[in-house]
Amino acid sequence: ISSKLPDTTPSIFSLMSGMANEYNAINLSQGFPNFETDKKLKDLVTKAMNNGYNQYPPSHGVEELREEIINKIANLYDKEYDPETEITLTAGATQALYCAITAFIHPGDEVIVLKPAYDSYEPTIRINGGKPVLIQLKGEDYKVDWNEVNKAITPRTRMIVINTPHNPTGTILSEEDMKNLEQILDGTDIILLSDEVYEHLIFDGKEHQSASKFPGLSERAVVCASFGKTFHNTGWKTGYCVAPEYLMKEIWKVHEVTVFSVNHPMQRAYAEYIKKPEHYLELSPFYQKKRDLFLNLIEQSRFSYTPSSGTYFQLLNYSEITQENDVTFAEKLVKENGLAAIPVSVFNIDQKDHKQLRFCFAKTDETLERAAEILCKL
Amino acid sequence: ISSKLPDTTPSIFSLMSGMANEYNAINLSQGFPNFETDKKLKDLVTKAMNNGYNQYPPSHGVEELREEIINKIANLYDKEYDPETEITLTAGATQALYCAITAFIHPGDEVIVLKPAYDSYEPTIRINGGKPVLIQLKGEDYKVDWNEVNKAITPRTRMIVINTPHNPTGTILSEEDMKNLEQILDGTDIILLSDEVYEHLIFDGKEHQSASKFPGLSERAVVCASFGKTFHNTGWKTGYCVAPEYLMKEIWKVHEVTVFSVNHPMQRAYAEYIKKPEHYLELSPFYQKKRDLFLNLIEQSRFSYTPSSGTYFQLLNYSEITQENDVTFAEKLVKENGLAAIPVSVFNIDQKDHKQLRFCFAKTDETLERAAEILCKL
Ligand SMILES: CSCCC(=O)C(=O)O
Ligand SMILES: CSCCC(=O)C(=O)O
Repeated sequence: ISSKLPDTTPSIFSLMSGMANEYNAINLSQGFPNFETDKKLKDLVTKAMNNGYNQYPPSHGVEELREEIINKIANLYDKEYDPETEITLTAGATQALYCAITAFIHPGDEVIVLKPAYDSYEPTIRINGGKPVLIQLKGEDYKVDWNEVNKAITPRTRMIVINTPHNPTGTILSEEDMKNLEQILDGTDIILLSDEVYEHLIFDGKEHQSASKFPGLSERAVVCASFGKTFHNTGWKTGYCVAPEYLMKEIWKVHEVTVFSVNHPMQRAYAEYIKKPEHYLELSPFYQKKRDLFLNLIEQSRFSYTPSSGTYFQLLNYSEITQENDVTFAEKLVKENGLAAIPVSVFNIDQKDHKQLRFCFAKTDETLERAAEILCKL
Repeated sequence: ISSKLPDTTPSIFSLMSGMANEYNAINLSQGFPNFETDKKLKDLVTKAMNNGYNQYPPSHGVEELREEIINKIANLYDKEYDPETEITLTAGATQALYCAITAFIHPGDEVIVLKPAYDSYEPTIRINGGKPVLIQLKGEDYKVDWNEVNKAITPRTRMIVINTPHNPTGTILSEEDMKNLEQILDGTDIILLSDEVYEHLIFDGKEHQSASKFPGLSERAVVCASFGKTFHNTGWKTGYCVAPEYLMKEIWKVHEVTVFSVNHPMQRAYAEYIKKPEHYLELSPFYQKKRDLFLNLIEQSRFSYTPSSGTYFQLLNYSEITQENDVTFAEKLVKENGLAAIPVSVFNIDQKDHKQLRFCFAKTDETLERAAEILCKL
């Protein structure tokens, strides 16, 4: 067997959640909440099943849900997409990312990826014969060096991937960042893949800068989003992407052969639930409290950090505790101390180690307290 | 935009179900039941949600479900797979087919496909740079000419796709067919992709010949299955594939980047429901009655046919009614007579037309009666 992904191992999330179970550890590794999704939303799924929505939905998604999402985007980001031709419901945001890359990346095409980056981008690019062109985010606060991005563009550059709020670092792109990107892409035929799965988790009064808001970006952007992250049900595997029709038309072809369509009762439930804006607008204050609680609880620890600006992840630097690399430290932490976190190096260029672990604070206060207790003892 | 699938249009299923809605027609086109999935199964989903199974399941699937499936296969086909390393739960069988082809087909590889064939195989092969090598099934009963298959093998042949019971024709492969295939593949490194989504829908006392049953096949086979087809809930988008570890290891890599994992509450529900063998063993007699009812009801019509041996599809030949091609006839049927069916030519080599439409008989008796009334008037 000649592997298309010879270097790919099971993802760090499978690995760390597996170890967390094995060692009966507190699991702050994989990004999912350990509290419950709204009972109202579960009841809506039950209602949808009982109403007979159990067969194939339309391939691009249930009409009511497509329309609700398009309305939401129009309200939040002042951009009108066509609900018939410019949106596809996907089996989680992962499948949206997969379809966008697969639809457009031909063998030899280059894709600019800002590192550290979510771990599905690069294997997806490579499986399509594309070449990831990696650019390191700069400094403690992981800023994009737009000059470097500009210089990395070649005639083979087909796509650039951005991610705001950013996993794993918890940083966000500013309006200025987006305008820089707009300028760089102006006049090129480069496609923008914008991973915005944490769009509703943004703190300290900051504003999410969606690619949809910027005409020079939205005209060439595939914007990916996740219901699992927004509504506390990552196991329902529903997300979506929006893009101009000339792009969506190609994404749809890949979507039809990868999964054909997406879970019907869940789509019906979301279509109803999403009608109330508070169901996603209350998310940022909710998670900001969790972040603040977690950071307060570890104030006396030897970890250092910049507070996360978005996502439900917090990076902690442990260089005052040990000089071990982060994979070793994460392994010890789960085995010896019963706490699982993600070593950031797995997201980095050449697995470069910055003595940081990523902690998911989408957990009950009690879990965060128990975790902090362990961290304060190190 | 340079399309990877320039000739691919929205699938015939999206098209015909769309037209059926538009013309308010009886929909015997897309393959799904119009009666309800078992209330017990819906209740199990509700129970799973209320029990908190709403976050990411393991990427390859919920342990209990994997074990139940492996037990079922051992009982039915006398083949032991390892539940940890030789099975992956997928977002419908479509995703299983997609992952298997994508994991193994490199640019320039040839894949033998027997035509007519389900419409996702070829675009999936092509999107990976592979070359579909098409072989026509022979005669009224769509037999495989194994000699022709044997001759089609070249040093670039990487895979052969079989499908039994067969969509769209309703034929099945016999034990002799499988032994012929075993002999042909012996000594080669060709991978077998066996689409067995209708394994539990087989009529007249015939027996399903799973690739899992034949050691010379199972050692190189990826076998794909569907819960949607078996449990009357195509909209829950859950299926799986089994394969020896050396193959599954590669499929898993593609699975992780395409969807990462599959709907959690649905998996929990199936794990419970599948424990009772009658839940899938009663399916063949149930659908045989539907087939017989449908064929009896159209006995006085001018359609001719060979009764379907498996799947929930019946081909009807309309050459005594008109010599129009099947796409034109199908269009008229939906627009003028209010009945939607699938023109078989879309599954064929060069869209060759055999004056046949495919009718899905997974419908209530009342729907079949109304459909037959229309057919008898033609
Ligand atoms: C799809 S599993 C990974 C979940 C996630 O987004 C993360 O932990 O970063
Ligand atoms: C995935 S939609 C097509 C359903 C089906 O299997 C068929 O109609 O052949």
